[in-house]
Amino acid sequence: MKRKITLKQIAKELDVSISTVSKSLRNSLEIGEETRLKVQAFAKFYNYKPNNIALSLKNRKTKSIGIIIPEIVHYFFSTVINGIEQVANEYGYSVVICVSDDSFDKEVLNMEMLANGSIDGFIMSLSKETQYKGDFHHITEVINQGMPVVMFDRVTNDILCDKVIIDDKSAAYEAVQSLIDSGRKKIALVTTVDYVSVGKLRTDGYEKALLDNGLPFNEDLIIKIEDVDTCEITISQLLHDRAFDAVFAVNELFAVTIIKTANKMGLKVPEDLAVIAFTDGIISKYSTPTITTVSQSGEKMGNKAAKMLIERIEAEEDDDDEEHNENYITEVIETHLIKRESTD
Amino acid sequence: MKRKITLKQIAKELDVSISTVSKSLRNSLEIGEETRLKVQAFAKFYNYKPNNIALSLKNRKTKSIGIIIPEIVHYFFSTVINGIEQVANEYGYSVVICVSDDSFDKEVLNMEMLANGSIDGFIMSLSKETQYKGDFHHITEVINQGMPVVMFDRVTNDILCDKVIIDDKSAAYEAVQSLIDSGRKKIALVTTVDYVSVGKLRTDGYEKALLDNGLPFNEDLIIKIEDVDTCEITISQLLHDRAFDAVFAVNELFAVTIIKTANKMGLKVPEDLAVIAFTDGIISKYSTPTITTVSQSGEKMGNKAAKMLIERIEAEEDDDDEEHNENYITEVIETHLIKRESTD
Repeated sequence: MKRKITLKQIAKELDVSISTVSKSLRNSLEIGEETRLKVQAFAKFYNYKPNNIALSLKNRKTKSIGIIIPEIVHYFFSTVINGIEQVANEYGYSVVICVSDDSFDKEVLNMEMLANGSIDGFIMSLSKETQYKGDFHHITEVINQGMPVVMFDRVTNDILCDKVIIDDKSAAYEAVQSLIDSGRKKIALVTTVDYVSVGKLRTDGYEKALLDNGLPFNEDLIIKIEDVDTCEITISQLLHDRAFDAVFAVNELFAVTIIKTANKMGLKVPEDLAVIAFTDGIISKYSTPTITTVSQSGEKMGNKAAKMLIERIEAEEDDDDEEHNENYITEVIETHLIKRESTD
Repeated sequence: MKRKITLKQIAKELDVSISTVSKSLRNSLEIGEETRLKVQAFAKFYNYKPNNIALSLKNRKTKSIGIIIPEIVHYFFSTVINGIEQVANEYGYSVVICVSDDSFDKEVLNMEMLANGSIDGFIMSLSKETQYKGDFHHITEVINQGMPVVMFDRVTNDILCDKVIIDDKSAAYEAVQSLIDSGRKKIALVTTVDYVSVGKLRTDGYEKALLDNGLPFNEDLIIKIEDVDTCEITISQLLHDRAFDAVFAVNELFAVTIIKTANKMGLKVPEDLAVIAFTDGIISKYSTPTITTVSQSGEKMGNKAAKMLIERIEAEEDDDDEEHNENYITEVIETHLIKRESTD
């Protein structure tokens, strides 16, 4: 018997991308006819079967949920999974997790693997590369075959499905407003260099808070940082110039590095520099001083996403016709400011 | 068509434990005949099929690895998964993760679900409850059916399989020795109240280092802490009495809490109190002062476990007879001391 071939092996054998194989097997007209037929012939020869969810969906419920997250060493995603597990347990569902490692190919492969009869639906947060490419065919395909998908945090408007997000714009607004309320005038936004949707929204909230309070919006105070290692160098120069008296950082690693840098330079937190971070993480709770944060409510997000998915799965079970209820909902989870020692 | 029933539903319907259902389906003589036959009849009526790995194993390789970990919001396990993913990617394997949440039942259910044709082998760390119960039938069963299992960190001598561990005893010894070398005489061990195998080994290493250096072993200096919330209270009393001048903590949350408690009481770290934690975590890197740690080498552990499992899977593919190579290996990953500000 011929061994079962994987999507990845087909791509390698034919020297095309995984996306091309995936699209060719769905007969997508985006792919030229020659390539399409070649991929299909190859797949047929090796007896490769793309997931055939629609056929099996009605009769074979797995009582399992698949989660796809971009990163595993990441406190926020861990708390979301915890939240999903809680609700899944309650409803008697098992949970399997795959990590895309912020790679488009891995996201496609993970979905392909899980959609092949292992699970009843997906809860997912997009990889950075998927957001950058704007290629969501693998998700559309799964939804078209009748498998429900709930997206959280890193979502896209290009896909119609249930979503759970936090209002990143108003969360950033609230943080910056609280800094303004305590008398800060030169507030920096310390953010990442990437294509993730939430970054843009947080910047919008930051800008709006400044403008609503009649403060100047200064592009130089939006500090984009590659990674934690370069954070200290960038920040120390700006602190040296006393360019700002408060910081809103998009994650706690930046925040704690800024505080350490300030301390080394003889500046006091919060007296000389107030700091707020966007996070559910534990560093903020245990650093010295402890750090004021805008909570991302990861666990609540997970609870909500799991409820939405399970309701969708069970509603479809009860449906006898093939029509799906397409009144998709985008649930906005409330954030809140947790005041600690790094602000006045 | 009757809907597929799950192990959990059978247990609920018949009001028996999941373990009883699982054992009855394997016709284990541990379960009384009446119960066994009842479970089997019920399962047959609902067309329940326990995993039939042996039948499918030769012809259907999934090129997927299943991981079962006890906790998801846990830096160490995240780094192990990262290490597994790196090697799996290299060899073209996908990875699916399940969380047992330190529950025996969830561990059994997760294994049952994944072993049902989704994966080629397991990498797992035992749940606390499984270690406490000493019931490993679900693992034995999977191994007997020819599916390779690699255990890491929380392992058991009762199962013959490949294992990846760190030498917890010598790691603890090294940490305590370094405290002794810097002149500390009253060294406390701050540990958890649980049944996990590694706790015992770390205590042994602590004790051996003291005795080898002619220091008294004082039971009162082994401080067992329920959780982080009670850590401060317990520690502050002992610090008040100046019961110790150094601490070896089994995790970084305890270590950072001890440092904060000491600071509040006007004690200086490391002058009045030296602190070492057992961890790969990030709090130690970012706390003030930064904390000296014994690295658990999670990523290396993951790398090694994945290599062992994939080699085992692919060796079995090449085997034509039914004999499995049972020269199981226990790989011991080296730890090392990362000196930071909390020690002299």
